[in-house]
Amino acid sequence: MTIETAIVALSDVLGDRLSRSKSDLDAHGMSETHFAPAPPDAVAYPETTDDVSRIMAICHAHGCPVVAFGAGTALEGHTSAIRGGVSLNFSRMNKVLSVHPGDLEAVVQPGLTREELNRELRNTGLFFSVDPGANASLGGMAATRASGTTAVRYGTIRENILALEVVLADGRVIRTGSRAKKSSSGYDLTGLFLGSEGTLGIITELTVKLRGQPEAISAGVCGFDAIGQAVEAVVAVIQMGVPVARIEFVDTEAVRAVNGYSGTDLPERPHLFVEFHGSVASAAEDAQRFAEVVADFGASDVRVATKTEERSALWTARHHAYWACLGLRPGATAVVTDVCVPISKLAEAVEETRADIAASWIPGPILGHVGDGNFHAILLVDPKAPDDLGEAKRLAGRMAERALRLGGTITGEHGIGMGKLGYMEAEHGAAWEVMGEIKRALDPAGILNPGKVVRGN
Amino acid sequence: MTIETAIVALSDVLGDRLSRSKSDLDAHGMSETHFAPAPPDAVAYPETTDDVSRIMAICHAHGCPVVAFGAGTALEGHTSAIRGGVSLNFSRMNKVLSVHPGDLEAVVQPGLTREELNRELRNTGLFFSVDPGANASLGGMAATRASGTTAVRYGTIRENILALEVVLADGRVIRTGSRAKKSSSGYDLTGLFLGSEGTLGIITELTVKLRGQPEAISAGVCGFDAIGQAVEAVVAVIQMGVPVARIEFVDTEAVRAVNGYSGTDLPERPHLFVEFHGSVASAAEDAQRFAEVVADFGASDVRVATKTEERSALWTARHHAYWACLGLRPGATAVVTDVCVPISKLAEAVEETRADIAASWIPGPILGHVGDGNFHAILLVDPKAPDDLGEAKRLAGRMAERALRLGGTITGEHGIGMGKLGYMEAEHGAAWEVMGEIKRALDPAGILNPGKVVRGN
Repeated sequence: MTIETAIVALSDVLGDRLSRSKSDLDAHGMSETHFAPAPPDAVAYPETTDDVSRIMAICHAHGCPVVAFGAGTALEGHTSAIRGGVSLNFSRMNKVLSVHPGDLEAVVQPGLTREELNRELRNTGLFFSVDPGANASLGGMAATRASGTTAVRYGTIRENILALEVVLADGRVIRTGSRAKKSSSGYDLTGLFLGSEGTLGIITELTVKLRGQPEAISAGVCGFDAIGQAVEAVVAVIQMGVPVARIEFVDTEAVRAVNGYSGTDLPERPHLFVEFHGSVASAAEDAQRFAEVVADFGASDVRVATKTEERSALWTARHHAYWACLGLRPGATAVVTDVCVPISKLAEAVEETRADIAASWIPGPILGHVGDGNFHAILLVDPKAPDDLGEAKRLAGRMAERALRLGGTITGEHGIGMGKLGYMEAEHGAAWEVMGEIKRALDPAGILNPGKVVRGN
Repeated sequence: MTIETAIVALSDVLGDRLSRSKSDLDAHGMSETHFAPAPPDAVAYPETTDDVSRIMAICHAHGCPVVAFGAGTALEGHTSAIRGGVSLNFSRMNKVLSVHPGDLEAVVQPGLTREELNRELRNTGLFFSVDPGANASLGGMAATRASGTTAVRYGTIRENILALEVVLADGRVIRTGSRAKKSSSGYDLTGLFLGSEGTLGIITELTVKLRGQPEAISAGVCGFDAIGQAVEAVVAVIQMGVPVARIEFVDTEAVRAVNGYSGTDLPERPHLFVEFHGSVASAAEDAQRFAEVVADFGASDVRVATKTEERSALWTARHHAYWACLGLRPGATAVVTDVCVPISKLAEAVEETRADIAASWIPGPILGHVGDGNFHAILLVDPKAPDDLGEAKRLAGRMAERALRLGGTITGEHGIGMGKLGYMEAEHGAAWEVMGEIKRALDPAGILNPGKVVRGN
């Protein structure tokens, strides 16, 4: 009863849907950020829920670890197979199973990416709103409780998933939630599996909420003299209830990176990127109210983009900011922080963080979904410099402590994986024990993504 | 180690915060609907989280059941002490602990009612949006995952609670969530306790989201020739994305009841009650779009109420509809159904239900929060007529089966309690087992609200 015996049994069932090629193993052991490679012993390519159920039953019987793998865009080492075992690659379970336009719902498989989903929806007048930047898989987004630029208006994935199909550790298949818009029927298992990072079950189907394409979209950028002014402007916009669809902060260093990478010509100062959705009248009214508020905080260089191409260029530049920042230090890898604080504490959190990074030798541009109080420092680490990773982790640790001191959380949207395990006790105290009790109830053998989220797993 | 030894130990700790008076026991064993009285053996009146923690530790050690009690407005026998034990009355933990206007948040105790909270917020320009009609306690609303008339715009309690303090079965105190607007930090324990009906832990503090008072509110009613037209109009309004703040269906029988009880003079035909929130311009634009849509479905008798008193009279009449319906059959008690279906199936669900009830001798007015696909039949049962309760339960059972057949849920907002246990397997299948596994992990002695939500509890 070992990983090896499990793989023999899996091979009988899966045939060529199980791979042990070195390139496959290496590709599934990689991390998007600074984690050392940790390849699995085999990669399975399930094509149906039944495949997943049979894989889990075998791995359960043999005590073999299982790590779900979507698009590989996780930032905290979620998909690293640190105890070996089998990586479940969902690229063959990537269909839109049904679209229900009248109910604003679609049923999809976990390997489908958000861009693929929105491409398929293009002619329906509907879209899926959650947009973490990366072209992540829906299963992965659900498993990490992802959000991104539009959460300020449309909510995170938590508010945009109605129902799941999940395969449990022992191979049982369950359905959570329903196609009804709300329910009080027992424990919210959908919510429990969202954000569980593959440690409680494997998501094999998702019923997602869709939104009507807004009649009008307008977008803009504006610059500020100082970080504090930009962030205070955001706080005022949110507190006044201006219904921004996106509102993103990009600091001076990140602006420099974006200009270099995407060919934009933004002045090198802190900026906000903003977008409004609505009727022609309401989007214009919202943009006007926004302009009035930010003017009070010294906003200048205001540019408005109402044409699709202009908007597209703007948001593509924002979405590529991570790679743009990596480009600031060629050869660097990143420690990406992800704190989220109450909006009233945002200016304090960002300014203290900026000062802390400025006092270090590590470059760390800051950007984020500030309408939700969520921001990231991209701490650039030279893998060959012996002290860099330690210094970046020290800065990240101080950001986490600062967020907790201000009533916030250590991760707004990236999740725990391996990278934030060390702060879980500080954030959750005895509630972290409760997470472990739930984990042991649903996965007594500890085969689901071991080493992630909970203690001693 | 019995209930009696627990009560002796509790008495030592609580003194006069523990009552065994017959009137107290009777008041806590009552049900708002058709359930037989099931009084506890004692009623505790905790004043602090520490009180609750000590009560739980004692009850855990003695194997004594504990049932949390808020305002007593549950409809499915949630607070009935069917295995005896201690009822925890939260009327002394009813404070607003803090309000954070800049963050649109407040921290409150579970015994506070929603009307009390909104009274305290009156001068802040903010309000708490979740409105189940009854003046329920916040703790009770959280425990049943309540929603009500405004959920179509502002979400259910699930979207309006950021964080909880919870006392576990063994007396441990945990905090879930944070004051940040979103988080990906581990399992969503807040979501797990919301809707757990006191079976996983006792909620002792809630951080709730607040909303800005809209600049303008307008409301209206309109009548239709037939149920089908009224419901089809709702479906069109929702599918077209008109941002109604409330949209309520009231059938002919319920209109008759409301007229009799609240002195309104609505024509005796199916009606919609509707409300719009926004800027002066947007509320007017929304009302205009609504009027255009419903005109296509033959709406008539359209009345608009922009003055506060008119609106207030309208919604008071709607909120009193339950008691108004009870008045249709003096001496009656009610079986209140609560199905929720995908909006595309709403007309089918309501019309089949209407026909089913019409073929029975049980009166059953229908009303509901139709913008979410959620509606209720108030099945009026004469407690002295031997066959009435059975017939009402048969009708309720057929509604539940119909909702499941149409992709919906057996309860949109009232919860499971005792009344819907019998449908849990049909709705959830193996997922119901998973709920039981979680229950046993967090409450191995089975002392938290036994006999509710999960099997064999």
